[in-house]
Parts: sequence; structure tokens; C-alpha cells
Amino acid sequence: MNLMTTPKPATSAKVTTAAMMKALVYQGPGKKALEDRPKPEITAPTDAIVKITKTTICGTDLHILKGDVPTCQPGRILGHEGVGIVEKVGAAVTAFKAGDHVLISCVSACGKCEYCRKQMYSHCTTGGWILGNKIDGTQAEFVRIPYADTSLYPIPEGADEEALVMLSDILPTGFECGVLNGKVAPGSTVAIVGAGPIGLAALLTAQFYSPGEIIIIDLDDNRLEVAKRFGATATINSTDGKAWETVMKMTGKRGVDTAIEAVGIAVTFELCQKIIAAGGAIANIGVHGKKVDLHLEELWDRNISITTRLVDTVTIPMLFKTVSSKKIDPKLLITHHFKLDKVLDAYETFGNAAKTKALKVIIEA
Amino acid sequence: MNLMTTPKPATSAKVTTAAMMKALVYQGPGKKALEDRPKPEITAPTDAIVKITKTTICGTDLHILKGDVPTCQPGRILGHEGVGIVEKVGAAVTAFKAGDHVLISCVSACGKCEYCRKQMYSHCTTGGWILGNKIDGTQAEFVRIPYADTSLYPIPEGADEEALVMLSDILPTGFECGVLNGKVAPGSTVAIVGAGPIGLAALLTAQFYSPGEIIIIDLDDNRLEVAKRFGATATINSTDGKAWETVMKMTGKRGVDTAIEAVGIAVTFELCQKIIAAGGAIANIGVHGKKVDLHLEELWDRNISITTRLVDTVTIPMLFKTVSSKKIDPKLLITHHFKLDKVLDAYETFGNAAKTKALKVIIEA
Amino acid sequence: MNLMTTPKPATSAKVTTAAMMKALVYQGPGKKALEDRPKPEITAPTDAIVKITKTTICGTDLHILKGDVPTCQPGRILGHEGVGIVEKVGAAVTAFKAGDHVLISCVSACGKCEYCRKQMYSHCTTGGWILGNKIDGTQAEFVRIPYADTSLYPIPEGADEEALVMLSDILPTGFECGVLNGKVAPGSTVAIVGAGPIGLAALLTAQFYSPGEIIIIDLDDNRLEVAKRFGATATINSTDGKAWETVMKMTGKRGVDTAIEAVGIAVTFELCQKIIAAGGAIANIGVHGKKVDLHLEELWDRNISITTRLVDTVTIPMLFKTVSSKKIDPKLLITHHFKLDKVLDAYETFGNAAKTKALKVIIEA
Amino acid sequence: MNLMTTPKPATSAKVTTAAMMKALVYQGPGKKALEDRPKPEITAPTDAIVKITKTTICGTDLHILKGDVPTCQPGRILGHEGVGIVEKVGAAVTAFKAGDHVLISCVSACGKCEYCRKQMYSHCTTGGWILGNKIDGTQAEFVRIPYADTSLYPIPEGADEEALVMLSDILPTGFECGVLNGKVAPGSTVAIVGAGPIGLAALLTAQFYSPGEIIIIDLDDNRLEVAKRFGATATINSTDGKAWETVMKMTGKRGVDTAIEAVGIAVTFELCQKIIAAGGAIANIGVHGKKVDLHLEELWDRNISITTRLVDTVTIPMLFKTVSSKKIDPKLLITHHFKLDKVLDAYETFGNAAKTKALKVIIEA
Repeated sequence: MNLMTTPKPATSAKVTTAAMMKALVYQGPGKKALEDRPKPEITAPTDAIVKITKTTICGTDLHILKGDVPTCQPGRILGHEGVGIVEKVGAAVTAFKAGDHVLISCVSACGKCEYCRKQMYSHCTTGGWILGNKIDGTQAEFVRIPYADTSLYPIPEGADEEALVMLSDILPTGFECGVLNGKVAPGSTVAIVGAGPIGLAALLTAQFYSPGEIIIIDLDDNRLEVAKRFGATATINSTDGKAWETVMKMTGKRGVDTAIEAVGIAVTFELCQKIIAAGGAIANIGVHGKKVDLHLEELWDRNISITTRLVDTVTIPMLFKTVSSKKIDPKLLITHHFKLDKVLDAYETFGNAAKTKALKVIIEA
Repeated sequence: MNLMTTPKPATSAKVTTAAMMKALVYQGPGKKALEDRPKPEITAPTDAIVKITKTTICGTDLHILKGDVPTCQPGRILGHEGVGIVEKVGAAVTAFKAGDHVLISCVSACGKCEYCRKQMYSHCTTGGWILGNKIDGTQAEFVRIPYADTSLYPIPEGADEEALVMLSDILPTGFECGVLNGKVAPGSTVAIVGAGPIGLAALLTAQFYSPGEIIIIDLDDNRLEVAKRFGATATINSTDGKAWETVMKMTGKRGVDTAIEAVGIAVTFELCQKIIAAGGAIANIGVHGKKVDLHLEELWDRNISITTRLVDTVTIPMLFKTVSSKKIDPKLLITHHFKLDKVLDAYETFGNAAKTKALKVIIEA
Repeated sequence: MNLMTTPKPATSAKVTTAAMMKALVYQGPGKKALEDRPKPEITAPTDAIVKITKTTICGTDLHILKGDVPTCQPGRILGHEGVGIVEKVGAAVTAFKAGDHVLISCVSACGKCEYCRKQMYSHCTTGGWILGNKIDGTQAEFVRIPYADTSLYPIPEGADEEALVMLSDILPTGFECGVLNGKVAPGSTVAIVGAGPIGLAALLTAQFYSPGEIIIIDLDDNRLEVAKRFGATATINSTDGKAWETVMKMTGKRGVDTAIEAVGIAVTFELCQKIIAAGGAIANIGVHGKKVDLHLEELWDRNISITTRLVDTVTIPMLFKTVSSKKIDPKLLITHHFKLDKVLDAYETFGNAAKTKALKVIIEA
Repeated sequence: MNLMTTPKPATSAKVTTAAMMKALVYQGPGKKALEDRPKPEITAPTDAIVKITKTTICGTDLHILKGDVPTCQPGRILGHEGVGIVEKVGAAVTAFKAGDHVLISCVSACGKCEYCRKQMYSHCTTGGWILGNKIDGTQAEFVRIPYADTSLYPIPEGADEEALVMLSDILPTGFECGVLNGKVAPGSTVAIVGAGPIGLAALLTAQFYSPGEIIIIDLDDNRLEVAKRFGATATINSTDGKAWETVMKMTGKRGVDTAIEAVGIAVTFELCQKIIAAGGAIANIGVHGKKVDLHLEELWDRNISITTRLVDTVTIPMLFKTVSSKKIDPKLLITHHFKLDKVLDAYETFGNAAKTKALKVIIEA
């Protein structure tokens, strides 16, 4: 999850006599701390206040900490994923009430604007990805959720809430941007370039459509091993720069029907162009900071599509059903657990994934 | 129409006592001539010999003459468009017989291979764009058509055959690569970059779907004027390099739902990227000789698609019906007429379109 | 527009000192009157009160008056179409403010429920078709619109508001239930059975997709003449019971690609089954009161689809654009004008369409 | 597989000195025999002669034997499924040669006609379902396959040929007519009415799309038990006539997203209408001999689709890939094995499925 638009200064927390809570606060490039902050309040009739029970860290949070996300200013509470219990709701909220267990979408959707009505919640004119970015987020004891009726999802009794944290962002991202845009189909051949959490989320959700082959490409043997466990039919360590040749050999020189880019750099996007079959689909998930080369001199006559997408989380209800019917086990993605007061350790672990083998870390608030 | 693969030498015409015919022959970069050549013969049971009545010249023929198309070797009879009368058919041809009036598709389709059965005739494993490229073409008195049953289309009695020449290549190209890939829809906003014959073909066929706005962008005022006559709701002369700003102003900063690239160079493809709305479709028609910049750092989160396609001519039957029901008038594209023995003049006129204002020129054989 | 569910008694208007207004009130089967009724008030924060400027009568209103719609109880103000000016809005309404000119959808959509989020507004769990049915409607000086943000549409300055009344119900109904479900395509052959206002709305909107033939079938020569003026390529008076033979003759025994049922009785639905081509689509718009025969013994192997739909009005934004770009002229449907105090005359005229040749009648409030 | 058109008399076998073979011949209603018949010969350049290695019996063969299929006349060799080895090919066959192992599609497709080019092979104007119906079929030592290039599929070395017999008809039928037409989707709720071989084929292939629930309804507890083993999440014995209530209870009164009719009688089609959710799809597979009631008075406003389809076998290449990648195990459907000289026993076993628990029986030629 990422978004780059004109930055607005984060309003500094007003010091009141309000109840206080713990929160992980971005303090400027390279700096973060667990601070005491006032509990959030309802500010619009469509808001809800949610007591966080479990949250997690996203790769985007690391980008913010590097100073790469100008919309997110110092003073901001981070986090855009999580599950919790509704504490109170604004006057116009009708779908939820205090005590309801809820899943938080990483995208806030007003439900009314042109984009929301086309299910492009990511482009909601007053919402989109704002949580833990333009407004305070979920790595805290409490969070204010705008447009609660259309940005929260009810958790049925008995559900495994920890698993559902994966539905806030990572699974819909892999599914919508990678699998749906990539038109994965029964018996088809899929390559996923990048075996980080997001590539693995694409791997897990691609299997909803029973592709014949899923080839995972990465530089890290450990991640490739994980990919195998998660259902990859083949893995390629691309360190030697020959992934292209290997894929073409595996596919009888045809290439793959779907190539999912899950890294966000030029070299991996270029690899997707080289391995795509005539008639195939390149689905970009990666967050790109620079332009890339598009080899139209090779591709203009190949009947391909290239797609981009910021996750809309419009598939959360569908994903809910796949979890409850055990078509997918989101907990495969969870490797570590921390309490909120150890959230700095959680960042440490998540930030050193190569060493810690962390995928997603759960933080219990 | 273009195709770049490994070149094969064109078989030189065997000198026999066979009947001779006139044909426009590519003689190497920069050289062409009207030659006497032997009439073609049936070489496979799926072949038909067609007596050409009307043909035309494509921009691709000019590319061949510049030496840009390595698959097309000196000695080749050019041309991949036209209508005519079946002279004789091979033993396995069942859909046509001598005397039938037919339209020739620029793409030869075996009808059997994996690609043909997915309607990707352009990628037919033994056909595709071979006419006037890897085998002798239609700018002659006779032509051999391989896979006649699936590469010719019957012309009903009373049809305007000259109009139908536009269905061999240019109209399906504008329609399939531009309009269908671009998902033009009722009320939507379309920009077409390039008002040459192919851009104009996209303009004409886009109107099948009743878009609200069709903005045409070109450097040539004459072509823009033609575009207006053909149904453009707005035109922009992009000589000043400000087409982007103009489009954004016209669309209330939203951009266009569909951007059709009908030139084939980096700057026009880049313009498409700048004017595409969130959720929009960039449909490339242009034949690109070089890589282009893709600004994924701007587009990764915009929910867009980019498509490429070599025309499959799979929509010829649909286009036939739109012509016979007068939903489109293909003759708008025809500006000049020549007899076959004046084909060099026809090339002269077509090659100097800026001066002659030529769009498509009809050559009567 | 129609809906049949368990009836709830309409709450009788409370007599208060509130400002009064004129309204057309259903008084039980066969009875209606122009009454003085209290002006509606905001009852939920998502409501708006709209001062009606123009409204109209729907065939469904006649059904209510016959006593055919049990959900609509005596005492109800009728009407579910219209344009007007926002008088005031509830606290949670953000998209509209007093003074805004608005189009009223016949379907109220909460924008939050499972169905609304799939764009099936007709099945909104707390909305759907309730206006002039379960709650008071638009044939009055003022109306309360629930879920205003997602049930009203802004009218741009300078628009022809009378034309837009046709976008409340009739045009989206013909378009969504008939044209979109019927998959009308360039060059295709369409039959519309029934040339009443709804069939004519399908006829007008079908032309967005440039079908080659549109055959209209009805019992009334006057309506068929209107259909010709509206773009039908052929008309058939089916009084002689031979419409089937005529269609098959016109289509070379193939039948039609799309058959749109716009009457709602067994005989017309049966005709659609007889004229549908292999691979075709039967799109039902008609409101049926009884079961019909489905000839699966003829159709099981014909690769056809049959669809039903209650209008969702999800295409109102698209239709707005087609009106503003003059791809359609909704005013063709308007035949008569009345002032609100002559609304009983308007019903008289609309109810005797065979004699008065009325299509849609505008009532100015 | 079934087809009902005007019957043509089957040409009686010419007595020649030709090599003879064993074949199962339909001898008129109620009568069949294993006869000596002349080996078939190439009669068109697009033909192939295939030596059958394995074939099977279809429910349609039983219909023929009852005299229900007027297109199939006495003297006909039955059977439209099977695998074998190409013996010889006509002059125009290019994709196959003697010795190739092939799968036979139950549908013969010319690859050239309007329908074939739309992938509606079932409606091929000179093919379709003719094997074992209008021309001699596969329950013999040899069979002539018309349009071999587009009606046979190559079997890769090492494949399990017995499993592939299920791809001739039954799996594509369940998949195309039931699963694809029914729009089965991840997490969705599916009901399949009828747990015979065809319903089970739908059950197996529905799982390609990871639906959340698959409810199977039948009268036979044994078949329901098989369905459970094949992946049904719930089964209902509908003997008590209360299947409707049970499904509505299971689905929280919503009904199912997809209802697949796999029996072919009025009562099961009616059940599908009662259990379909708003917005759902009823996919008919059953061969119906009589008209059915369609409750449009209940369904007209439910936004549903009803589809019919004769299998096109256009998904055979996709199914091949799902078999080779082990996404499906077609052999689950095979319960019994016979040699060709015991084909009458095979019919006996298959015809008494309730007692023998037969699903598909393999006949080795």
C-alpha cells in the first residue's frame, strides 16, 4: 500500500485531558517511537472508533520511515491493517455498533463518489489510502475509521481474527492487482516475480483459479522454499540473471500466460516483458519509484495487456468466504507475534526479513 | 500491418510458359517496379487463386520499401488488402468456388492452430501476416491465398466492393487494436493520437459505441479537419507541445477514459500516459521500432491498462454487417483512384499524403 | 418499475400545523385524488427534501391504481420519477445542498449493503423501489428522498431538465434490462417485442451499440410508426399471429441475436423463444404476473441466455453523458404536458394511450 | 450429448471385401448387437481413421436405444467418446499423422463456419454432434473422424489415456454448460441438482474456481455419498420434496449464486428457480424432452440469468492442462472396465447404475 500525492502537515496531537493510549508514531525519516497519545474521537457522523486487537506492519510502513512517502508527515500514527472491536460510532453509522468485531480495510471508501460507485475505492475522492498516511493509523490501541459503514467489515463469531488481519491489505492486493488483473485461469501458466509477502499473497490467491503452473522467481532461496510450501510448482533463483531463459525453457518457448510483478523495480518489470506469451497479461503490483523501459518494439504485435492497480479491497467479502470455507489459509503468511509495547522489536524483525525470515508479524494491542 | 521475424529469401519466380500478369514488385530498399510475373498456381489443397479487382496501399508497404521489414525480401509482390473474384480453388476448399466475389483478409489463418482457435489469427503458427510479406501479395492481377476457407470472406451480391477494400486491414485494425482494446463505451471520453488513415479508422469505428467525446490529436491541420468531418468532437494540433494541458483542461483534469496511440513513436505513447484517466485504457495501434518510457512511477496506482495487438481481422464479419446496415461508410477513407498500370503514381500520391491529402488510394486491377 | 413483496400499511399522514402541499394520492383500487398533504420532513440524517419541478407517470402507477401492487397501500403519494431542487438535507448528506438541481432515481440506494456494493441497487436491503410505493413519492410539490447522496444525481447548469426526467426510470430500464442484458453489439440483429414507452426506451438506447437491424413488434400500428421514427429498421404488426414467421424470414431463418421482451405476458415471452438465434440472448423487461412456458425441449441445446432484471439505475451517470453529448434525445418520449393541478387529466391521457398516443407525460409541479 | 433434428436414414454398410471389425450397432428401439462391420475408409480429405483403444458409454446412448433420438437410425454404430491411435489421414489433414495418439471430441467441428469461428462447435453447420448419431461412432475397433484437424486432440506421451476419455464429452459438458455458464467464483455458493455422471463432472470442474459451498441434491444416497467424496460440502436427498427449504436454510434464506440443473426434467428445473439467489445464474445441462414452467412472476425482478448450452468441447485444451497439472482426477468417474467383446455387459452395467453404482464404464477395444 502506498500513495504519493501532495503532503499535508499532520495535525499535531492536541494535549487534552482525554484518555491516553499507546501508539507507534513516525517522527521523521529514520525515526519512530512508541508514544502516549490521546485516544481518537468521533469527528464526523460517519466515523467509528475501533479498539485494535491485532494489527501488523506493511512494507509501505518501512517506505514511510525512509521518508519516501511525502503524504505522511512526522507525528503520524502508522498502520493501515488490523482487526478490532467497535468502541463507538457516529450518528450516521448504521451497519455497526459498539461491541462489533470488525476487520479494517486499508482503504477508506466514502461509498458515494464516482470512483466508489465503480468499486474503485482506492480512488475515493475523500478517502483511499489515508489510514496511517494522511490520518492516524492502526498501530495503536485505538483508531478512528472514517466512512465506517463502507470501510469496516463484520467478523462473524468464531472466526479466526488473526487470520483475517491478512485481509486488510496484503491478500486483496495480491488478489486484485495480481491475480484478477492477470486473468489467472484453470490450467494456465503463471509467473510471479518477487516472493516477498505480496508475491506470496498473489501465489496463495492465484490458486483459487487452479492454474497449471505457478513459477516463482526471487533472489532469496529461503523465500523460494517458502513459495514451494505455499504451492509454487517451480521456483527460480534469478541471481544469475538467467531467469528469462529458464522460464522460456520451462514453457516450451511460449512464455507465461500471466506475469505478476511483485517487486517494483525496472529489472523485474523488464523480466515480465521478456517472459510474457503472446496474448498474455502482465499484472503490476509493485510500487515503482522510477520510470521503466517498455519494449514496444517487441510487444506492439504480441496482443498483450499490462495493468496497474492500487488495491481497492473490493474483494474483501469474497476473500472472507474463501477463508471461512478453508479455500485459503491466510495464517501461512504470519511468522511472528509481538505485543504492542514491543512494536519496535516487531519493526526490527520485519525490517530484517532476510535474516529473520519474517513474512507478516502480528502485533497484539 | 507489419511483422518482424527472421527473414527468409523470397523464392524467385520460376520462368515457365505460364500465363503472365502485371505485379508491383519490391526490388530492395528504395526500389520497386511494375513487372511481368507468372500467374500464381494452387500449391496446397487449401489454396485459392483470386483475380484482384481492387487493392490498395498500406503504410506498411512504405515501411517495406524503406527496408524496415526484414521478413520481406526483394522480389516480393507487395500488397495485403483487396477484393476480387475466385479463379480456382484447391481440393480442400469448401466455402468458395470459382466466380465467387471475395474480400481478402490481410491475415492468413489456418483455422486449426492454438492461436486460430482462440481467434488470434495474427499469431497463426503457419499464417498470420504473410501476404505481400513472406509470400506474394495483392498488388497484382492475381494472388494465391493460402487457407482460403478461413482467410477469404464472401461478398454478397450488390455490395459496394470498393468500400469493402477498407475491411481487409485498416478498419479491423482501428477497431480491434484501438476501439475494442480501448473499451470505448457510451458517453465515454476518447482521445486518438494520430489522424493518419489508421487513426481515422479508429475514429470511424469508435462511433459504434457512442462515446460522448472523441478528441483527435495530430500535427497536421488538414488531417484534423478531416477528423472533424469524420466525427471528432474536438481536435488538437499538438505542434506546440501542449496537447496534454489542453486535454486535461477539456476533461476537467480527469483525463480520458480511452487513449488510442495511432502513430508508433515514443512521444505519442508518452502523451497517452499523461492524459489517461484513473481506471482508463491505453490502446496501442502504432508500429513501434524502439522502446519507450513507461512512467510506472506515475501509473502504478492508477488502475489503468495498456494493450497491444496485431490485427486479427476476427471482426471482419461484424464489420461487414455494420457496412451493409450503413452504420459506417468506409468510402470516407478513399481519396484517390488509379489503374494497376499506374500503381507507381498511386505510391507517389500515397507517399506524399501531406501534400496530396491522400488517405487510402484504390488501385483497380 | 414494479416490486412485489409483503405489504406494509402506509403510515397515515400526521395532521400537524406543518406547511401543506398538493399531492396525488392513491386511495385504494380504482381511486386517486389530488389532496392537500403536509410537506415532508427530514427523518434521517441521510435524507433530502426535494422540491419537485417536473415529474411523470409510469405504467407501474397504473398497476398500483388497479390494486395490483400490494406493497403500495391507500394513502400513498404516487410517483417515482422526477427532477427538482434540493430544499434541505440531513446532517450526513455531503454531496448535495439546498438549491442544487437534481435528478431523482426511481431506486433508493443506501450505498452500503451487499447489493449496493455490487451495484444491484434494486435489491438494496433497506431501499430499492420504495418511492411512491412504500414511502411517499414524487407526484407532489415536495418529496423526501432517503439516502440522498446515492439516490440523487446533480444536474449541471444549462441542462434540459425535462429531458432528464426520462433518466429517473424509463431509459435506465430499457438500457439495463433490455440492451445491456441483451448484449446488443455492432451489426447485430435485435428484436424488441412491445413498442410501449419501455420498448421504445430500449429502442433508443440499443442504438448506442450500432446494431445492424432493430425489428419492433407490436399490435398497434401507431406505436410501430413511432418506432420507425425512433430508429427501428423494420416493424411487424403481430395481430395476425405470424410475427414469428416474419422474423425468421427477415433473418434468413437464423433468428435474432437479441430478443427484448417489453410487455410482460406469456405470449410475447414465447415469441422471444421462437425467434432467438443459436447463441442469442433473451432479455426480459416486462413485469410478469403469471408463470410462462419455457420450451427447454427446443432451447436446451441452443446456447442461449435468458435474463431478468429490476432496473438498478446504475447507468444514470453514463446516460447523463450520452444526453449531454447528444447521442440520444430523451425528449422524443415526451408527448404531453400538464400542471400538477391537472394531474388527474395527465392520468386520463396516459391511461388512454391507444387513443391519445401518449408516451410519457410531463407534470410540472 | 444429444441432438434433435430431422432424421436421415443411416446408409447401410456396403458389403465389400474390406477388412472387417467389431462394432456395437443400434438396431432400432430396444435393440443393439455387437456386429461385424467393414472398417471405415477416408471419404473426405479432412478425414482421419482412428483405431479406438478406449471408449465409453454415455447416457445419450441409452436415449438412442429407447428410440428417443430420431436423428440416429437403425444400423448406426454408437459412441461419441474415446481415445485411439491415428491409422491414416486424408490429404488435407496437417495436424495429425498415422501413429499419433489422439483424444476424440464428441463434437465434430469444421473450423470454418460462422459457428466454429465463434467457438460454438456444437452448432457447426456441417458437424456438431454427429458421431454415433448421424455417422458411425466410436464403440468399434475403428472410427472415421471428419474434420480431424479440428476434432481430434493430440495426447502427449506418458499421459494416462484412460483418464482422457473423460475429456471427450462428460467433463467439458459439466464444465462448459454448468460451471462456466453458471459463473462459479471463489467463495460462491453452488447447488448441483442431479448427482449422475454429468452432475459429478460439474462438481469436479466447479472446484477449479474454489467456490465456498457446493451442495449436491439427488434422490440416491449412494450417489450423494460419491458426491461427498468428490468434494461436495453438503448433500441433500430430495426424496421428501423439501430440498428447497433445506437449501434456503443452509444459505441464510439468500439462495445459491449458481444452480446447475443436471437432470433434464421439470421438477429439477423448478427447484433451481426456487433456490437461486438474487443476481444468480441457473445453468441448464439437462436434456429436456418437454417444456417447463418458468416462474417469471417470481423471477422477473431478481436479476438472474438462465443459460442453455450444448457442449462445444472448446475447453478440451484447457482441461488437458488441468489434468496434466493434476488439478483434477478424471479417473474418479470411472467405475468399471470391459473389453469390446463384452460391450453388451458394459451396457447392462451402465444401464443399471442404481444397482451397479456405475458412473462411467471404460470399454477397451
